[in-house]
Amino acid sequence: MPKQVDHRERREAIARALWRVVEQHGVAHLTMREVAQEAGISLGQLQHYFTSREAMLSFAMDFAAEQTSLRVDQGLQELGDQPHPRDVLRVMLTEMLPLHADARATSRMSAAYVLEALHDSTVHARAREGITQGRALVEQLVRQAMADGYIQPDRDPVTETNLLLALTGFTTLIELDVIEPQDVLTAVDEYLDRLFTTSVPPRPAPAATEQST
Amino acid sequence: MPKQVDHRERREAIARALWRVVEQHGVAHLTMREVAQEAGISLGQLQHYFTSREAMLSFAMDFAAEQTSLRVDQGLQELGDQPHPRDVLRVMLTEMLPLHADARATSRMSAAYVLEALHDSTVHARAREGITQGRALVEQLVRQAMADGYIQPDRDPVTETNLLLALTGFTTLIELDVIEPQDVLTAVDEYLDRLFTTSVPPRPAPAATEQST
Repeated sequence: MPKQVDHRERREAIARALWRVVEQHGVAHLTMREVAQEAGISLGQLQHYFTSREAMLSFAMDFAAEQTSLRVDQGLQELGDQPHPRDVLRVMLTEMLPLHADARATSRMSAAYVLEALHDSTVHARAREGITQGRALVEQLVRQAMADGYIQPDRDPVTETNLLLALTGFTTLIELDVIEPQDVLTAVDEYLDRLFTTSVPPRPAPAATEQST
Repeated sequence: MPKQVDHRERREAIARALWRVVEQHGVAHLTMREVAQEAGISLGQLQHYFTSREAMLSFAMDFAAEQTSLRVDQGLQELGDQPHPRDVLRVMLTEMLPLHADARATSRMSAAYVLEALHDSTVHARAREGITQGRALVEQLVRQAMADGYIQPDRDPVTETNLLLALTGFTTLIELDVIEPQDVLTAVDEYLDRLFTTSVPPRPAPAATEQST
């Protein structure tokens, strides 16, 4: 196995160890020593892969975002060749929520990172960039769905995008057992059903020329 | 001044100092020593008011929730005698979001507490209780608004309540400067306008007998 791949794998294993520490004990007392212990390596070995707590957290967060993307991609593949934009948004939204073990690990990592961002400008910039990219992707989907007639044309794509992103607020309500996962899915489905209720039926196969520019 | 009041005032001053520490440095390294320093008292004096970090955090969180309630009450008073339920929900929702300095302090305290709750069952129980009570209040408002004809009768009050609460997800998007405060207010207003669009005009003054039981 090439050294580069091995290096990457070790970093990912450390990131997963960090997630476990965050999931079990929070980010409050997170130290490189604690992560090294959880990963079953020495502090010196850990420092070979990450020179600082910040670099380690940063990688663990990027890796969490990457793993969430992979789960979304997998969910999208299961939708088949020409998925309905409603179903695409549903996969994106539900994989952001802590509705199963993998999503819970990445969601908690993300929440910890956001809190870290509030008093660390480097983390803030990285977190902002990541979420802004995700937001742009959702806005693109919303605009395309509008152009294709799936969403009423009088809706404002910016506002619709912002409201969809705000629904990640279910995270706290799930984590604190205020709302059952099933009720969250019911609410998400109801919300998407309403967004995709058009007064005219959607065109079956939108022509390329009719798509938004 | 009675000793009881003085004791309460000292605890509130300490809680505000704790908020400042959380706002500036996060909950990550929060220690009683650090809070004592911020409050300008000795660690021994702090320990006279709070016997543990957990007790101190707990009080600071309750006090944050209380201050948020006070801001909501003040906002409701400004609405006059018979406020429209849409405006009541708008005040409740926007005062939860970090849209001004006071709300930011309590919102960050709340976010830190939620993260703490993920690995502390006592904090989890308290946080869950607080949010569950808030949720019940919103559901009561939604049910009353439905009974009074302000919200379409085919809506499910549980789902509508859950969706309203999920909109607190704007918090992260505001904190990370992903969405401008003005765009958040636009989205919240659009959401509430849609919720309160009834096919029949609302009855001007609902009779007591017609209200939900």
